[in-house]
Amino acid sequence: MQRDSGQMWRATVAWRGGAYAGWQWQPNARTIQGEIEGALARLCGVDSTIRVSATGRTDSGVHAEMQIIGFRLPVARLPHQVVAGINQHTDDDIVCLRAETVDDDFSPRSWTKEKLYRYRILNRVQPCPFRVGLVWHLKHALDVDTMQAAIPVLVGRHDFSSFRASGCSAKTTVRYILAAEVRRIENDEIQIDFVGHGFLRHQVRIMVGTLIDVGLGRTPPSAMAIIRDARDRNRAGRTAPAHGLTLVSVELMDGARIVDE
Amino acid sequence: MQRDSGQMWRATVAWRGGAYAGWQWQPNARTIQGEIEGALARLCGVDSTIRVSATGRTDSGVHAEMQIIGFRLPVARLPHQVVAGINQHTDDDIVCLRAETVDDDFSPRSWTKEKLYRYRILNRVQPCPFRVGLVWHLKHALDVDTMQAAIPVLVGRHDFSSFRASGCSAKTTVRYILAAEVRRIENDEIQIDFVGHGFLRHQVRIMVGTLIDVGLGRTPPSAMAIIRDARDRNRAGRTAPAHGLTLVSVELMDGARIVDE
Repeated sequence: MQRDSGQMWRATVAWRGGAYAGWQWQPNARTIQGEIEGALARLCGVDSTIRVSATGRTDSGVHAEMQIIGFRLPVARLPHQVVAGINQHTDDDIVCLRAETVDDDFSPRSWTKEKLYRYRILNRVQPCPFRVGLVWHLKHALDVDTMQAAIPVLVGRHDFSSFRASGCSAKTTVRYILAAEVRRIENDEIQIDFVGHGFLRHQVRIMVGTLIDVGLGRTPPSAMAIIRDARDRNRAGRTAPAHGLTLVSVELMDGARIVDE
Repeated sequence: MQRDSGQMWRATVAWRGGAYAGWQWQPNARTIQGEIEGALARLCGVDSTIRVSATGRTDSGVHAEMQIIGFRLPVARLPHQVVAGINQHTDDDIVCLRAETVDDDFSPRSWTKEKLYRYRILNRVQPCPFRVGLVWHLKHALDVDTMQAAIPVLVGRHDFSSFRASGCSAKTTVRYILAAEVRRIENDEIQIDFVGHGFLRHQVRIMVGTLIDVGLGRTPPSAMAIIRDARDRNRAGRTAPAHGLTLVSVELMDGARIVDE
């Protein structure tokens, strides 16, 4: 069978997402998947597509400090050749950190145990030239304590219909968020972390947009449970822009969390 | 007198330098000084040049987390209007953090007490998509302890002729370096800090290039004093690339160090 020819690989990649229309391949747009698939085809000297899978999709403009991908190469290569091949044949905003051969049954999506997403907000009047494209710039002061008071409502196993994009086609809207935290970093930046098995489309960004309303005093923290239980997208806040969101790490079933190295 | 008309201002600015040919105005290149002068002229609605001075020049491609500038505005403006005017009329890689009126005798260069320059090196095999343009990427492992052993030779009052660019026209080559430090950050980044009153052209970058040779084992730490005392540019290492260098902070004579806010 064609599918069984070649060696299965697992690789860790990072990217700055501003120039890409998200993870998933598209016919007329640059995507992370498309760029990596093109790089692997060049590495292997083949015209056919080398399909690459990830632990999940990311939206247009979202960054990844670490994503795990899987693919089958039709020709033999050494790990350092795979890493170098991806890096040479992609722009410098996509980087392969390491690669290794794995058993045939490897599947990034089905092996995913949990993911950590981080949303970064620059919360001061003036912008910052070094964080352009990586943070959402909000000039009005956010009350982190109030946001922290609202966040436990989002942790646990819940129907998150209120926090999913209108176009989301997931079969079930129940998701399990293992941990969530808001914190202030270096006076001017606020980071909101979510750890979960998986998320609905735009879920993190809509939860962030709703928490922003809390931090601005527009929504009381006590309203968060009402918004969640309404199962109505119109009750939640706006969708925070993609460029503030980063997939920080992914933990697979087979063991230790792999972090950016 | 024309010079005495208008109000003297002091402002704090930051920039990411990759798109600019350094601080100083040039007729056919985008420079930080040129961009800010253009923004102030638009803010004030004048055709004439509003000259802006800084505590010193920075090379093409060098970044600043904080630089102090001075200028005289021919029309009355409020501080928040000056900040907003600079930010609106420059690209988002130049940011004014604050502005305030000052006495007529204010001069950034002559009031400078000390500056902190930081050189950042990404020291791992793979690049990092989030630090492109901000760090010098060196794949070979550097020995930080050895570099630290060599650095005291660069601290103090010395003739730094060995570490100045061939085109440097400074009247004296004696400079006083108050402090210098090498440290490893988060496993993969090495930072080299220099604090001094002022530096010769390319001095920090040539000192860094020479320290890199020490860290790679090409030059023994004990050779650093010999290189310094030779007063010969050919004895020192290469000039490290500009994009790894950042002016982190400036302290003026009049008091507290102003940091990025």
